[in-house]
Amino acid sequence: MKLILNSGHLPQGFLAAGVAAGIKRRGRRDLGLLYSGVPCAAAAFFTVNRIQAAPILVSRRHLGRGKIRALIVNSGNANCMTGTKGIRAAEAMASAVAAALRLSPSQVLVASTGIIGRQLPVDRMSRAVPRLVEDLDDRGLCRMVEAIRTTDTFSKEAMVSFHLGGRRVTVSGIAKGAGMIAPRMRLATMLSFIVTDAAIAQGALRKALADAVAHSFNAITVDGCMSTNDTVVALANGQAANRTIAAGSRDYGIFSKALREVCAALARMIVRDAEGATKFIAVSVKRAASHTEAEALAFGVANSVLFKCAMFGSNPNWGRIAAALGAVGARLDWQKMTIALNGVAVFRKGRPVALKKRGLLRGRDIDVEIDLARGRGAKRVWTSDLSYGYVRINAEYN
Amino acid sequence: MKLILNSGHLPQGFLAAGVAAGIKRRGRRDLGLLYSGVPCAAAAFFTVNRIQAAPILVSRRHLGRGKIRALIVNSGNANCMTGTKGIRAAEAMASAVAAALRLSPSQVLVASTGIIGRQLPVDRMSRAVPRLVEDLDDRGLCRMVEAIRTTDTFSKEAMVSFHLGGRRVTVSGIAKGAGMIAPRMRLATMLSFIVTDAAIAQGALRKALADAVAHSFNAITVDGCMSTNDTVVALANGQAANRTIAAGSRDYGIFSKALREVCAALARMIVRDAEGATKFIAVSVKRAASHTEAEALAFGVANSVLFKCAMFGSNPNWGRIAAALGAVGARLDWQKMTIALNGVAVFRKGRPVALKKRGLLRGRDIDVEIDLARGRGAKRVWTSDLSYGYVRINAEYN
Repeated sequence: MKLILNSGHLPQGFLAAGVAAGIKRRGRRDLGLLYSGVPCAAAAFFTVNRIQAAPILVSRRHLGRGKIRALIVNSGNANCMTGTKGIRAAEAMASAVAAALRLSPSQVLVASTGIIGRQLPVDRMSRAVPRLVEDLDDRGLCRMVEAIRTTDTFSKEAMVSFHLGGRRVTVSGIAKGAGMIAPRMRLATMLSFIVTDAAIAQGALRKALADAVAHSFNAITVDGCMSTNDTVVALANGQAANRTIAAGSRDYGIFSKALREVCAALARMIVRDAEGATKFIAVSVKRAASHTEAEALAFGVANSVLFKCAMFGSNPNWGRIAAALGAVGARLDWQKMTIALNGVAVFRKGRPVALKKRGLLRGRDIDVEIDLARGRGAKRVWTSDLSYGYVRINAEYN
Repeated sequence: MKLILNSGHLPQGFLAAGVAAGIKRRGRRDLGLLYSGVPCAAAAFFTVNRIQAAPILVSRRHLGRGKIRALIVNSGNANCMTGTKGIRAAEAMASAVAAALRLSPSQVLVASTGIIGRQLPVDRMSRAVPRLVEDLDDRGLCRMVEAIRTTDTFSKEAMVSFHLGGRRVTVSGIAKGAGMIAPRMRLATMLSFIVTDAAIAQGALRKALADAVAHSFNAITVDGCMSTNDTVVALANGQAANRTIAAGSRDYGIFSKALREVCAALARMIVRDAEGATKFIAVSVKRAASHTEAEALAFGVANSVLFKCAMFGSNPNWGRIAAALGAVGARLDWQKMTIALNGVAVFRKGRPVALKKRGLLRGRDIDVEIDLARGRGAKRVWTSDLSYGYVRINAEYN
């Protein structure tokens, strides 16, 4: 089982496309399409934000109706807080694709990302759909991933192949996301579409996706800001002709591991590409009283604006880590606590340790390890620093 | 009842001082002292961070022992996560002042602000105490407020005088704070010391302070980061010789209003002086289902890093306000919701409104008003934008 990044490889029976429909400026690709020759088992998770974009409402409805054949996605416009007109626009996207591919609209999922509160240019998009369908290709993934980028500086695509009972199975995923990324113990602010030719029961696919998301997209944060459009979709079309995977089986274990690797790779890419980021930071909390507490503490540090600024400055100011931990509200026994930066203890069992090494945090990768010596809870999350670049991007956006 | 800023005026019977003890570099003032000729009723609130600095532990103990005569405070070092040695250092500060002023150590409160995890230079500080005591003066408040500054760019001092039964009563307060300011529905990250010559029962003072703090220091946020050293202390020495104020009386109402004005003025100054701030932003949530919900929603917006960056860019991107509201998790009926920026509705009852006016947010002051049309809950909080300056200050600090 080997992880391959940016191969552009799609599992059997899937096609993808990406064109410029004029939603974004300067002729950039902004409309993407995924298509499967046969119906797919589908699983999806959406933002838990109380304000949800129109495409999420439409996709939820379509998911309830049965198997899925296609997914259309646009960037440059979130189609959020756009009222009934927005809902109709999301439905129109699905219908246009359904008409061109001779599907039922409920077999088509919809996703959007971009600015909130503007109506989609539906006419322009509908006119682009024939071109989009024509662009469908088993090598089209690279164009689709380009079409979902917003402030992303690079494309995010990961693939794993493996064998199940002599059949080669592939899991390929793409993602977009660089800012408005937050955990909220649910979904990070991003879009990710994962396709596989595995034959897998719908329930098993959902379970595997939930597990993969918990260890990837829900274990990252860029700015603690939760989006209205987060969407993760997994589609499985069974074209690998393996014996259908049931939850709990040995095959499930292998498939689940592959899905987790693909999602984790995409999540790491999102953090590496975080808006303005100059650092990739892993915050690990160990020996917390519980898993829940470990998670809250790890995110407490990872979302601390002061901590993130210190990391930008390669500044080993661990007092900010301590303050962020204390702010979470969990009981701490700081006299037993140890904090290590890149493997060097800066605070050991209640005592500050004088730093001998200069430039400890100079590199791009930073490991923060917090040992609470209280219990068995553990959690690792990934985050980025807060730089001038983040402020620039988000002061200017739109 | 008139609010006067930076008058340097102390109520009767109080003296203040501020000297350079060599904790900060370049001979800047870093040690301050407040002294009352007679014992004071005292009330105090401290951070709810699970990690609390040594001076807080010592001050809590002293407050439990009875009336207070003096308060010593240093900047440049938080004396936090410094173990038993840190506790002894805080006790030594109180003892040095007690010895020089012939008080009992338990009559002296202690506060610190600055970097976490370094031991206080106790010897240097003890050597400075005689100079500090000598510096005590009824015009010493300006030097004391200077001694508590860290990243503050200006001194924060407010005063109100009024009459109670023919007696002139004065409430004077000072504060420091510019970063690591967060609400957590409790205390913002700051130090504030308020002195009054009012005669007031201890219980009434505590009640009035709790009320004032809720509407001032607990209604602001700079970066959502909670400190380990937050301290608000009010001391009342009774030298105005008014009839002792009891909770619930007419005099209590007047006193309470004065205290609230002083605290609100100091809180506004903290936000105006927020690290790197270029904007002063009031976020008002109206007609929420409850007060608690209004507060959570107002802070949800005020602490959103994306919102703060947009404000820095004078960017009326109200979608970020909507996303931040939705992330709080409270039920929203966005079809009834209205969002106004500086009095101009940008989203009215579920519909985006095209902005006609350019440069709507160009000024320093920004009013964000969110009308939820759900109930009677309301809350206004003050915050600042997130600028390059904030990142610079916090990447470089220490």
